[in-house]
Amino acid sequence: MYPKSLQELIEHFRRLPGVGEKTAERYALSVTDMEELDVREFARALVNIKEKLTRCRICGNLSEAEECSICSDNSRNKKLIFVVQSAKDVLAMEKTNEYRGVYHVLNGLISSSKGKMPEDLNIEDLLKRAEDAEEVILATSTTMDGETTAMYLSKLLKEQCPEVLVTRIAHGLPSGGMLDYADEITLAHALSDRRRMG
Amino acid sequence: MYPKSLQELIEHFRRLPGVGEKTAERYALSVTDMEELDVREFARALVNIKEKLTRCRICGNLSEAEECSICSDNSRNKKLIFVVQSAKDVLAMEKTNEYRGVYHVLNGLISSSKGKMPEDLNIEDLLKRAEDAEEVILATSTTMDGETTAMYLSKLLKEQCPEVLVTRIAHGLPSGGMLDYADEITLAHALSDRRRMG
Repeated sequence: MYPKSLQELIEHFRRLPGVGEKTAERYALSVTDMEELDVREFARALVNIKEKLTRCRICGNLSEAEECSICSDNSRNKKLIFVVQSAKDVLAMEKTNEYRGVYHVLNGLISSSKGKMPEDLNIEDLLKRAEDAEEVILATSTTMDGETTAMYLSKLLKEQCPEVLVTRIAHGLPSGGMLDYADEITLAHALSDRRRMG
Repeated sequence: MYPKSLQELIEHFRRLPGVGEKTAERYALSVTDMEELDVREFARALVNIKEKLTRCRICGNLSEAEECSICSDNSRNKKLIFVVQSAKDVLAMEKTNEYRGVYHVLNGLISSSKGKMPEDLNIEDLLKRAEDAEEVILATSTTMDGETTAMYLSKLLKEQCPEVLVTRIAHGLPSGGMLDYADEITLAHALSDRRRMG
């Protein structure tokens, strides 16, 4: 019922994660109210993602250069590799300002429900990098797929790079968390991973 | 911290209504996973909105032709004008299949908080059209701005087109409700229960 060009834009917005019919309509209608220059720049920004953005050849992070800004930073400790499932996890960690090592982006998790196999992930490069590393920190989510992937990588690293220290990020109560609101699995982990104090 | 092209796309998504930082990041990252052809078509669809879509010269509805599909439909009753604030309200009403008149899109509401004055709206054309009409149905939202606009238009129409019957859609719509979020039955009731104004 909408004019064809509007209907087409609605369909494109619908492909974004979590966007339904009503939201896509709202987005498309808001575009009709934007300045032409802004809409052209929006369109250009979309195309730029495919034309300019690539994956860092070392760690797999999103980058416009062959090597991302972290891998090409000489002040970062290249012997410490923080393994995450996606580029947005790199950003989340960088925001803490606590980490001075480098990253490795798997680009997904091993998942039987999504049909993701180890060979679909950026694992081969990780094994090569791990040979020269001192520590590999497995920082996939604490979900079922995240744990499966961490277990798989841990086993593989032990076999192929026996020299490297393999660690897993702590699994416990979140900051500000209350015991009576935590689920059993979190509490069990918080207990078993307790550390000495003082 | 993200590569420049990704950061730029995030900022464009943030300008969409109701989109915050996290959501814009999710949208932009999902674009990195799309096929190049799909992204190019998405960009094309955005530009098409500005290149192909215009406003119907009669009613102000969104249209690709000079006159929208409703105004150029001879089976519609041109003596009955349903006045709405935006093009999406036209679609909402058309979905009821209850209305066989035509529309007039104001393109906004009189709003002191948003600094929208009567002269910013498509009112002059409405007055011209009302001269030949039998009835003008004021169907702005039942919000404060919507009521203000309806009152203003009712007064103006009484003065300038004393022959025309001016009605207001019934408060079948919940108070504070917006047309494009109402269900068809509510909208159909709001049409049939319209009352005379002034």
